[in-house]
Amino acid sequence: MIKFALLGAGRIGKMHANNIVLNSQSDLEVVYDVNNSAAREVSNMHNCKIAQSAEEAITNKNIDAIWIASSTPTHIQYILLAAKAGKAIFCEKPIDLDINKVDQCKKDLENFNVPIHIGFNRRFDLSHSSLKKAKDNGEIGNLEMIVISSRDPASPGIEYLREAGGFFRDTAVHDFDLTRFILGDDPIIEISAYANVLFSKAAKETNDLDTAMFILKSQSGVLCHINNSRRAVYGYDQRVEIFGSKGMIISDNQSPTSVKKFDKNITNSEDPIYYFFIERYDQAYKNQLNIFIDCIKNKKATLVNFEDGRNALIIANAAYESLKTKKSVKIKY
Amino acid sequence: MIKFALLGAGRIGKMHANNIVLNSQSDLEVVYDVNNSAAREVSNMHNCKIAQSAEEAITNKNIDAIWIASSTPTHIQYILLAAKAGKAIFCEKPIDLDINKVDQCKKDLENFNVPIHIGFNRRFDLSHSSLKKAKDNGEIGNLEMIVISSRDPASPGIEYLREAGGFFRDTAVHDFDLTRFILGDDPIIEISAYANVLFSKAAKETNDLDTAMFILKSQSGVLCHINNSRRAVYGYDQRVEIFGSKGMIISDNQSPTSVKKFDKNITNSEDPIYYFFIERYDQAYKNQLNIFIDCIKNKKATLVNFEDGRNALIIANAAYESLKTKKSVKIKY
Amino acid sequence: MIKFALLGAGRIGKMHANNIVLNSQSDLEVVYDVNNSAAREVSNMHNCKIAQSAEEAITNKNIDAIWIASSTPTHIQYILLAAKAGKAIFCEKPIDLDINKVDQCKKDLENFNVPIHIGFNRRFDLSHSSLKKAKDNGEIGNLEMIVISSRDPASPGIEYLREAGGFFRDTAVHDFDLTRFILGDDPIIEISAYANVLFSKAAKETNDLDTAMFILKSQSGVLCHINNSRRAVYGYDQRVEIFGSKGMIISDNQSPTSVKKFDKNITNSEDPIYYFFIERYDQAYKNQLNIFIDCIKNKKATLVNFEDGRNALIIANAAYESLKTKKSVKIKY
Amino acid sequence: MIKFALLGAGRIGKMHANNIVLNSQSDLEVVYDVNNSAAREVSNMHNCKIAQSAEEAITNKNIDAIWIASSTPTHIQYILLAAKAGKAIFCEKPIDLDINKVDQCKKDLENFNVPIHIGFNRRFDLSHSSLKKAKDNGEIGNLEMIVISSRDPASPGIEYLREAGGFFRDTAVHDFDLTRFILGDDPIIEISAYANVLFSKAAKETNDLDTAMFILKSQSGVLCHINNSRRAVYGYDQRVEIFGSKGMIISDNQSPTSVKKFDKNITNSEDPIYYFFIERYDQAYKNQLNIFIDCIKNKKATLVNFEDGRNALIIANAAYESLKTKKSVKIKY
Repeated sequence: MIKFALLGAGRIGKMHANNIVLNSQSDLEVVYDVNNSAAREVSNMHNCKIAQSAEEAITNKNIDAIWIASSTPTHIQYILLAAKAGKAIFCEKPIDLDINKVDQCKKDLENFNVPIHIGFNRRFDLSHSSLKKAKDNGEIGNLEMIVISSRDPASPGIEYLREAGGFFRDTAVHDFDLTRFILGDDPIIEISAYANVLFSKAAKETNDLDTAMFILKSQSGVLCHINNSRRAVYGYDQRVEIFGSKGMIISDNQSPTSVKKFDKNITNSEDPIYYFFIERYDQAYKNQLNIFIDCIKNKKATLVNFEDGRNALIIANAAYESLKTKKSVKIKY
Repeated sequence: MIKFALLGAGRIGKMHANNIVLNSQSDLEVVYDVNNSAAREVSNMHNCKIAQSAEEAITNKNIDAIWIASSTPTHIQYILLAAKAGKAIFCEKPIDLDINKVDQCKKDLENFNVPIHIGFNRRFDLSHSSLKKAKDNGEIGNLEMIVISSRDPASPGIEYLREAGGFFRDTAVHDFDLTRFILGDDPIIEISAYANVLFSKAAKETNDLDTAMFILKSQSGVLCHINNSRRAVYGYDQRVEIFGSKGMIISDNQSPTSVKKFDKNITNSEDPIYYFFIERYDQAYKNQLNIFIDCIKNKKATLVNFEDGRNALIIANAAYESLKTKKSVKIKY
Repeated sequence: MIKFALLGAGRIGKMHANNIVLNSQSDLEVVYDVNNSAAREVSNMHNCKIAQSAEEAITNKNIDAIWIASSTPTHIQYILLAAKAGKAIFCEKPIDLDINKVDQCKKDLENFNVPIHIGFNRRFDLSHSSLKKAKDNGEIGNLEMIVISSRDPASPGIEYLREAGGFFRDTAVHDFDLTRFILGDDPIIEISAYANVLFSKAAKETNDLDTAMFILKSQSGVLCHINNSRRAVYGYDQRVEIFGSKGMIISDNQSPTSVKKFDKNITNSEDPIYYFFIERYDQAYKNQLNIFIDCIKNKKATLVNFEDGRNALIIANAAYESLKTKKSVKIKY
Repeated sequence: MIKFALLGAGRIGKMHANNIVLNSQSDLEVVYDVNNSAAREVSNMHNCKIAQSAEEAITNKNIDAIWIASSTPTHIQYILLAAKAGKAIFCEKPIDLDINKVDQCKKDLENFNVPIHIGFNRRFDLSHSSLKKAKDNGEIGNLEMIVISSRDPASPGIEYLREAGGFFRDTAVHDFDLTRFILGDDPIIEISAYANVLFSKAAKETNDLDTAMFILKSQSGVLCHINNSRRAVYGYDQRVEIFGSKGMIISDNQSPTSVKKFDKNITNSEDPIYYFFIERYDQAYKNQLNIFIDCIKNKKATLVNFEDGRNALIIANAAYESLKTKKSVKIKY
């Protein structure tokens, strides 16, 4: 039984708490949040302790692993505290928005040997991962193109956007990681970015973006396209397509039902797709937890490591540079 | 070049006229209709002669084949005239509504040796026929079930219904034939019928039906289901499913476009399916013509012969008997 | 917190045990099985007590409700014991295979007033139930047809078939109930059945069936078709279609992934559908539990009651009579 | 009846000849090809005259319109001859591969006033054009993204590639035009291109490309992605997606049948999509002819004019510049 301390009891922290409790191999021992009432909510629901500080939670001798779901600026501090305490670490993406801090953290971590998993949940979705597996099994022959459409249902509010680090670092970063996941050991070497503010006032006021397109190129020559929007009225659009010498595989959207309607105006009409990540990636979050537990128990390497978190940020930064310079930018890892 | 005389210049006659003219191997030489203005319309459009009587058209020495698309009561008379004249015969279904007349016609035809093709057009649809071919190739292993959903877009008017011979002989008969087509040399031996008037005033006033379900059993034990309605607001519903030891094949509905729409309420929504038989089976009618021409030119046996027309009527009659007696009725051919 | 005693720790009992434990409003207090090692397995996994007899489990003062998942012949006995003990009752279908015993049980239960829920799980599937809801909301106008295709992935072994009560009472009974569920207060009044042994040796040796088709008619004239097979190589085929004056709704099959493959031979090819009921109706079983708990806590009427269990059996018996007499059989409730 | 002279009797010329003859409002009067035997084939099949030179065909007094389907280097010469002769002109894309020649031709045409239609056939596909119509009707609200996947089934041979003008001018040019068609009066102002030779030896030997991705930006800020491949083993992949404030519309691939297969390994598997443009855009070519005839008869402006042909070439040239400079290139019309 792996005992967790949860740092951060917001929307996503609560979801992780629930998964930890449901999992027969893990338990939630203690929770901490700067907002005491959020911590109390989790504590009441799952009957776990409340820590008065992150440090108290992290150094608690009963716990095996730290689950970091707090605000981004706290991540590195908590990672290092946990590393010093010799605990296994799960950290929500991004590690940090500043590549220099991430690089310093990387150096600091060299002194410790603890498993660390960065929360790129999409890799653990059954459909996306079976697409990856099929590619690795050679089902599409040589990979030549990746096309990802990834659109959120609705733009977040201005408070969120002020802290989020920008469209590329906050949102597109998931798709950069997914592209890296599919490519495997064929690194992304170049990127071009186009982006706009087409509809979101909040994005406009925070100098952020709401619509973007990228082309990425891998070392072996695979061409990859990503398109992102902060708003899709039909739900959380999450499609991945890979194309190669022997065929194509699409990981398509999903709906909660298999109902199809036919009337005077429409045929084969399906219910709206899942609204957002909590619904769409429910199974992925649970799988990710299982795999992280397996890594801890069986001393395996984590499947998404610190370097993965760092590399996705480097690509996002290169995307911003391309947007600014209107050039194709080489990625330097 | 096969030269045709067309008898009957109504909606379906006009469609056949058009196909005959478009086909590079056939020509329309003469047309006849009791309604002179209908004949004139076809004549004007396709630059063919008008006969003053069916007999004149049939005995015209320039023509090779008679295309009978006139009203049902005239079919047998025209078939026999054409047989006597030694012409190849295409006859729209049904041969006649009265099995005794059909039996007499069968006897009368024994004296002649002319190709005769009964117009069960659905056999020539690319999707239905490729389903049949896949079954014959063993793709689903042993055939165990057939399920046919076949629904017209809108109930015909009272005049049509008065002449049409009843829902089973007019409409379901197509599906009885399609079932026979799929079964091949495994004859249907038994049928149960349920039917109702649920919505059509015209059907009610003519003592006809608008909603029906059948189960048929073949000699080898295959179970077959057919459901029919005289009205489907989403278009002409034409689905065929076969099921067996190695799998299932469905010949699904078709839409004129491959457009899919996504908005707040619907996803993957397609355009309405084809409205009715002229649109849905356009290609099937053209294929049927090609095959009939091939039979004539190369002295091959026709693919839907007089016996096929007769057998479908016998099944329809047995269905009426089942409806009346509330029993499973054995088919006697 | 509703505390359950589980009777029967076989495959389906284990699944229910798991759901009871996962549910935040229920707990598994005690388990009983004639096979002690099966009971011990559940006890070990979920940390609950083992009763030495069904009676001991049922009369345990800590428990609120009895979950009957034991073999069919024990159902009535356990139901009556539980009723006497004043416990809420969940009973897997069927109540019993003998309508006389069911009728006697019905009388015996008149003396008690305990909630009883019969386990027709399919009613609680999100897709089937949203189809039902759409029908109740008038989305397809007047209901005119129901078409159900329901096929198991693989025929059970001879031991199971010996006890199961026959294809119609064991398997088709689910579809009879689903038809009743959709029809609501419009009772089924008539049925015709066709069936065969086409492939299963075990079915042949036990005088059972493996392939069946039914037509049912409701009082208002709705026509319903059901087809069943004991083997579908592509998985657990579970499709429901309703058709009416304003359109059609289909509750289609489901696959664990949304992956589509394209190669030289196939396009849009999806992964196999769910293999069997445990996977396909996972969510339905959980919903059913939630609703049963809600009935207990809030003293609501159960959504599938004793009469529903009895009526489905009556229809199955009428189906057997139709098969034997080759007649349409009126249903007498 | 519009009478055509056909210049060029290769594969696509033959297809056009066939359509012209099938159309009830047009006739093929004369054909010319440098390869006399190709001209004779068309003449024999459709019973039309053979001209001894393009000039003879063009100046034939019986003809109303010139259909240019000859090799690209002859286009401008024939266009100008036809303009001088006062004939309506249909010209297959591209006008020419050299923008300077196109510009000169544009000037030369200023002296004449003849209708000229450039053969961007995809605009006339029923699915693509109904997507465009839905966008114009506001069905997706404000347009924000266009995503086009366009892949040929198999790479052409080295002879074809030597003449074709390069992947962007020969193939992607269709997608540049389709993007312009959807955008309507919102011009494309910027483009970035990535491309590779990943598999085609013929492309390698001719310094051509076989895999490409583009991002284009419109004046109003719409972001557009196009991906192209010279080989897709599952057929001619032709998908168009538009996304906006109210939803998304996809014009998906099409298959000749509506058959779906289910076995142990696959479900819902469809037949391969149409193999190439002749099959996929059959209806589009016929619609294009109808519309061109309508323009001639009713003195309407053509729907794809000289400027459209010129602009698509300008975008293709900018794409090459972007590929070379690794910069986003502004389009100068």
